[in-house]
Amino acid sequence: MNEFDIIKHYFNVHHHRKDVVMGPGDDCAILQVPANTLLAVSTDTLVSGVHFFADMDPEALGHKALAVNLSDLAAMGADPCWVSLALTLPEVDHDWVTQFCAGFFELAEYYNVALVGGDMTKGPLSITVTVHGTLPEGKGLLRSGAQAGDAIYVTGTLGDAALGLQQVLGKVSVPDEHQEFVRFKFEHPHPRILVGQALRDIASSALDLSDGLLGDLAHICRASGLRAQLEVEHLPLSDAMHASVSQEQGWELALSGGDDYELCFTVPELHRGQLDIALGHCGVKFTQVGRMFAGEPSVELVHNDEPYQITGQSWDHFR
Amino acid sequence: MNEFDIIKHYFNVHHHRKDVVMGPGDDCAILQVPANTLLAVSTDTLVSGVHFFADMDPEALGHKALAVNLSDLAAMGADPCWVSLALTLPEVDHDWVTQFCAGFFELAEYYNVALVGGDMTKGPLSITVTVHGTLPEGKGLLRSGAQAGDAIYVTGTLGDAALGLQQVLGKVSVPDEHQEFVRFKFEHPHPRILVGQALRDIASSALDLSDGLLGDLAHICRASGLRAQLEVEHLPLSDAMHASVSQEQGWELALSGGDDYELCFTVPELHRGQLDIALGHCGVKFTQVGRMFAGEPSVELVHNDEPYQITGQSWDHFR
Repeated sequence: MNEFDIIKHYFNVHHHRKDVVMGPGDDCAILQVPANTLLAVSTDTLVSGVHFFADMDPEALGHKALAVNLSDLAAMGADPCWVSLALTLPEVDHDWVTQFCAGFFELAEYYNVALVGGDMTKGPLSITVTVHGTLPEGKGLLRSGAQAGDAIYVTGTLGDAALGLQQVLGKVSVPDEHQEFVRFKFEHPHPRILVGQALRDIASSALDLSDGLLGDLAHICRASGLRAQLEVEHLPLSDAMHASVSQEQGWELALSGGDDYELCFTVPELHRGQLDIALGHCGVKFTQVGRMFAGEPSVELVHNDEPYQITGQSWDHFR
Repeated sequence: MNEFDIIKHYFNVHHHRKDVVMGPGDDCAILQVPANTLLAVSTDTLVSGVHFFADMDPEALGHKALAVNLSDLAAMGADPCWVSLALTLPEVDHDWVTQFCAGFFELAEYYNVALVGGDMTKGPLSITVTVHGTLPEGKGLLRSGAQAGDAIYVTGTLGDAALGLQQVLGKVSVPDEHQEFVRFKFEHPHPRILVGQALRDIASSALDLSDGLLGDLAHICRASGLRAQLEVEHLPLSDAMHASVSQEQGWELALSGGDDYELCFTVPELHRGQLDIALGHCGVKFTQVGRMFAGEPSVELVHNDEPYQITGQSWDHFR
């Protein structure tokens, strides 16, 4: 199979979107953006050996490559629509590509996202995905909208993907009954699309947690010009976390572990009632973990109202 | 500098587009697509050692990474608007990144294209660019629109980039006075944006030449269900080509050499007069090189009306 046959064989997958005027196979995709909406675009690259192990299950990798990008749309409150996939492979292993596509398209179909184009090249394994979504005009959960007094929330439980990584690296022993859970959280992050949409008129700011709460929340602090205080005793930890590490280690993984792809968002007191109702409909757990204050942009940790410190730091590729 | 500082330092370049509601630095870019237009999107990846030499001048590489993507918009007749850049680097060499950005942003500024997002990761050098443009509703130069009887045209001269590559590889000796020209054509392809826009109401089909005329024209044949006949004696060759290789070698480079980024398009007889006027305004040379016929999709070569054959084949990454 040559490059064109491969693309035709694997990537011309049927979808149900009428707004795709031209999908893969021409010079460009042509797309119909609905009237009175804004276009939301995000790009993320996953590199073998940096973001994932070279032998990672290709089905999980296909899922994750799309999931981490959809997570950015979720953090903006956008409706996912279309995706481009640039896949660089050392060689075409048909089993591998088939499984990668299975993971990718299962998630794409779940959110009715159409693959509209991309590129396939030879080279060291890496995947760049660009997702496109739409937002009602005037909406969009920016990082810059937090106000002093807003409560800080996170969805789900934190640090499980980092725990999964520690387990794979043999640094932590996760009890048998929790192994599947942490492995799944590590390999199959689920983008919080419905939560993002539900938060559009409720949250004052939001982002998705990819590098760890401590580092990611600092972006909201800088963009909003505020200080954040996190109460570590309120960090939501999973049963798997409690069963595998000490509470302090759990907090550290929750604060500085990457790859959670949960949402972190701020909510004014006025919207608290709405929040309970809106997220109740999504069936997603959410937890208040702190509050925004006036002051120099920074994230402070407290434990039972006393200052608290951890040693870890957020993941940064070029540190 | 960490990842965020790098992005802030190099990639938050001023632009003049009012349709960028949110640029780099949040979870997504937010963009305002004009009413009554369609969105055109294209993605291309350049991998070190596959698409370019690892020691390629970073300024030229920055230019080329954007140019090859803009070329896809040109081939669709779209107006360029926004671009995302996913840059994977083994390490941050500030001189290298500065020069890469100089080449990238010079071209972006020329076409008023705003960088709206992207990603920067550590790994083997590769660059994935996603460009976004707009098209008036109902327009768009598809590959599938050619009709039997349409004339086939190309812009510029063909094979110069391939000649430049042969020279770099030491397989061809280009006379001194032409060396700069072929090196420039190889490293600084210029996307034919204005030509594409001018062709919107004139051409029946179009694409850009990235893999060689022979292979690329075959895409139009397949998409349109037609046979193409190319008259090799009409292939536009540069003075540099004539001065460096035999006529037959020149035709071969023109037919099967990659990286030209000229446009190939088909025009009904009815629009021939319009074509001369429209492309005259662009100041771009264009040449009729053949004609579309009813028949099984294929590209035939003739030389003075006799069948003609070459030995080369179009570039294909996975052959």
